[in-house]
Amino acid sequence: MAENTINLDVMGLESRKASKMLARLPAKTRNSALLTLADLLEASSAIIIEANDIDCTESLGQGLSEHMLDRLLLTAARIKDMAQGVREIASLPDPLGVHRDSYTLPNGLWVQKRSVPLGVIASIYESRPNITVDIASLAVKSGNAVILRGGKEAFNTNKTLVTLIKKAFTSSGIPSEGVQLIESTDRTLVTELLRMRDYIDLMIPRGGESLIREVREKAYMPVITGGIGVCHTYIDKDANMEKAKAIVYNAKVQRPTVCNALDTILIHSDVLETHLPIIASELDKANVELHCDEQSQAVLSELTSLNTVPATEGDWGKEYLSLTAAVKVVSSMEEAVNHIDIYGSGHSEAIVTEDHSTAMQFLDEVDAAVVYVNASTRFTDGGQFGLGAEIAISTNKLHARGPMGISELTSYKWIVLGNGQVRA
Amino acid sequence: MAENTINLDVMGLESRKASKMLARLPAKTRNSALLTLADLLEASSAIIIEANDIDCTESLGQGLSEHMLDRLLLTAARIKDMAQGVREIASLPDPLGVHRDSYTLPNGLWVQKRSVPLGVIASIYESRPNITVDIASLAVKSGNAVILRGGKEAFNTNKTLVTLIKKAFTSSGIPSEGVQLIESTDRTLVTELLRMRDYIDLMIPRGGESLIREVREKAYMPVITGGIGVCHTYIDKDANMEKAKAIVYNAKVQRPTVCNALDTILIHSDVLETHLPIIASELDKANVELHCDEQSQAVLSELTSLNTVPATEGDWGKEYLSLTAAVKVVSSMEEAVNHIDIYGSGHSEAIVTEDHSTAMQFLDEVDAAVVYVNASTRFTDGGQFGLGAEIAISTNKLHARGPMGISELTSYKWIVLGNGQVRA
Repeated sequence: MAENTINLDVMGLESRKASKMLARLPAKTRNSALLTLADLLEASSAIIIEANDIDCTESLGQGLSEHMLDRLLLTAARIKDMAQGVREIASLPDPLGVHRDSYTLPNGLWVQKRSVPLGVIASIYESRPNITVDIASLAVKSGNAVILRGGKEAFNTNKTLVTLIKKAFTSSGIPSEGVQLIESTDRTLVTELLRMRDYIDLMIPRGGESLIREVREKAYMPVITGGIGVCHTYIDKDANMEKAKAIVYNAKVQRPTVCNALDTILIHSDVLETHLPIIASELDKANVELHCDEQSQAVLSELTSLNTVPATEGDWGKEYLSLTAAVKVVSSMEEAVNHIDIYGSGHSEAIVTEDHSTAMQFLDEVDAAVVYVNASTRFTDGGQFGLGAEIAISTNKLHARGPMGISELTSYKWIVLGNGQVRA
Repeated sequence: MAENTINLDVMGLESRKASKMLARLPAKTRNSALLTLADLLEASSAIIIEANDIDCTESLGQGLSEHMLDRLLLTAARIKDMAQGVREIASLPDPLGVHRDSYTLPNGLWVQKRSVPLGVIASIYESRPNITVDIASLAVKSGNAVILRGGKEAFNTNKTLVTLIKKAFTSSGIPSEGVQLIESTDRTLVTELLRMRDYIDLMIPRGGESLIREVREKAYMPVITGGIGVCHTYIDKDANMEKAKAIVYNAKVQRPTVCNALDTILIHSDVLETHLPIIASELDKANVELHCDEQSQAVLSELTSLNTVPATEGDWGKEYLSLTAAVKVVSSMEEAVNHIDIYGSGHSEAIVTEDHSTAMQFLDEVDAAVVYVNASTRFTDGGQFGLGAEIAISTNKLHARGPMGISELTSYKWIVLGNGQVRA
C-alpha cells in the first residue's frame, strides 16, 4: 500500500466492524487462530529473519544503539519463543462470557455482569517487533480488534509479521480487518490516530517516556499509562540481612533495563553500618554504581574498592534502567514512605523487614500498583503473577493497575432478565 | 473567598494531601462523618432553604425554565430525603480493604488485590444541588477527596451545603480539604481544572450533553462519560402483549426526563397490527406523542384519536427526555439489533419476547451498558440494582459500565507477601 493511500477513518471503521464480528466468535475459533499462527510463525522463520535483516542493517546504518538493536533483532530461537508465547495465550481460559456479581433482586429481576471485549484496541510502540505478535494475540484472544503502529526501525519485520498474522487468522475464520497495521512511518498519522475516539476504545503506548507522555497528552480516548518504574526497596531496622542482600541484588541486577528493576535503596539508620557494606559489596560484584547520600557515602567510603559517587537531587526519582542505584538513609519507616510518596512512580515498592506491624503499615501506606514485603520488585509481571502473557503494566488507577492480562482487555455488560417487571 | 484569590493549584495540592489522610481513616470515622452530616442537614433546613431561595429568585429573574427551576429547588422534604440518602450511604458496606483474587504462587509468594481509594475525584455539574451532597458523601465513604464545581444557578445553595459538609466532616476527623468547592462561576477555571491531571484522578461531569462533551474533549485526566441514554425497546414477534404494553408504558411514562427512559419503540412487523394499536392507546393515556415510520403510521392512522406525527431521520437516535417516542417497524430481530447498533448510545436496551433463543441472541448481540429481557429500561439505576446510591451511569467501557456505586470509586493495589523470594 502506498503511504498516501492510508485512510485512518476507513481503517477505524473496518476495525469497528471486525470487532463486532470478533466479539461473537466462540473461544474455539479464537484459540485455533492462535495455534495456527504459532505454527505459521515457526514455519516462516526464514522470511521473518529476512525482513528483520533489512531493518537491522538499516538501523545499524542510522546508528541505532546496540541496546536498541538487540531489541529489534529476531533469531530463529526468538521466533520459536514468540510462537511458544502465542501457544500459551491460546491455552489461557477464555476471558469472555464470564458472569460476575450475579444476584436476584427482591422484584425477581435476575441481574449479572457478563465480561465482553472492549472493542478496538490500538497500540503505538517502539522497536521490539515481538510486541506486534503479543498484542495481536492478546487482542484476538480477548475478542478485540487491534490497530498497530510499530516503530519505524521494525517497519519490514512488522509488515511481514502482520501478513502472517492475517494469513493465520483469516484461515481460522477471524476477519482480516481484525488486525491492522499502519504501514507508514508518517508521524502525522500518529496524531490523527490519537484523535480517533469513535473507533478506538483503548490506546496502549509501549515504549520510552517521551512516547508515553505524547500519547497521554494527545489521545482523545482512554490510555493505559505504564512502563515507567521508579522502584524503591526499603531496608527496615528489623530487616533480615540475608534476605535484604538477596532481594536488593535481584531487584537491581537480574535485569536492570526493565521497569520493575530497583532504582533506590532506602535504608534505616539503625542497620546502616551493619547491612549496607555487605549489600554494597554484593552489588559491587555485578559492577553496580551506587549514588549515595552523605550518610551512606560516609559508611561506604571505608570500603575503597566500591564504585560509589555522591548522590545529587536528580538521583531521587530517577529510573536508571542500568546497573546504577541510589542509596538514601532514613531514620524511620515513615520517612521511607514519604520519600516513596514524593519520588516513586506508583509502580513497584518493597520493604524488607521481620516486623509484622511494620510490614502491615508499609502495605497500608504505600500507594503503588504493587507493594511487596520481603520479595524482589522484579516479580511485577503478568507471567510471574500467573496471569499469562501481559499487555502492559499499568500505573493508572482507573480500570486496571499493575500487570494487565487478557481479563483487563475486557469490559462487561449488565444482563437483566425479567418477566415483565416495571419500575414503581 | 474573593473570586480572584482562587488558586486551583493550591486546591489540588490540598486535595491530594487530604486524600492521603482520608485513605487511612477507618470505615468507622468515615461513616460517623456521614451520619453527623445527615443530622446537620436536617437541623440546618432553614438556612439551606434561605440560600436556595436566593438562587431560585435569581434564576427566575434570568428566565430559567420551570423544569430547571424544579431541579434547583430545595424544600424541607427534599432536604430530609437528602439526609436520608446520606444515611443510606453510611450504611453501605465499606468498599475499602476488600481483598480479591488472593492466591499463592508456586514460589510461595502470596498475591492479592486490595481495594483502595482512587485519590481525588472532581465533579463538574449543573443545577441540582443535591449532587453536592451525593458526591461528597460517596467520595468520603470510599476514602476519596473531592473537588466540586457546581452550576452557577445553585451558587449560594452549594456554598451553604459545602459549609455544612465541612463542619460535619471535620468534627468527625475528616480533613477539611477533603471536600472543596470552587466558589466561583468563572468559566476559565473549568478549563484549568480539566488540565489538573497531577491532582485529579477521576473527573465526573453531571449534566447535559454539551457539558459532557466539553469535559470529555478538554480533560487531561480520565473521565466518566454517561448520562446520555438513547434507549430502545424491541417488541419481538413472540412478545407477550400485556408485558410489552406495561414495559413500554413504564419505560416511557414513569419518568420521561431521565436518561434510562424509552426513546424508540422497535416493533416486529408480525405483531405490528395486533400489538401496536393497544400499546399506542395505552401511551396516549399519558399524552405521549409518537413519531412513526411509514408502516407504523399506516396502522395507527386508523385510530384517529392518537397523537402521531411522521418520523424524520432526526428521530432515530434522539434522546427525547419528554413524553415523545419514535416508532419503527422491523422485519427481524437482526434488523432491531442493527438499528440499536447505529442509533443507540450504549446505555439501556430491552427486548420483549417469550422466545428463549431470541432473548439469548439479543443479550449476546446488543452492545450496551445494560441489556434487558422483559423488563423496563427504567431499572438502570444504582439504587434499583442494589448498589446503594450511584455516582453516575457510565456509558464508558473502561473501568466501570452502567450504574456506578462506591465500589467503582475505588482502585486496587497488588499486595505481595514474601519470605525473601527473588526472581530466577
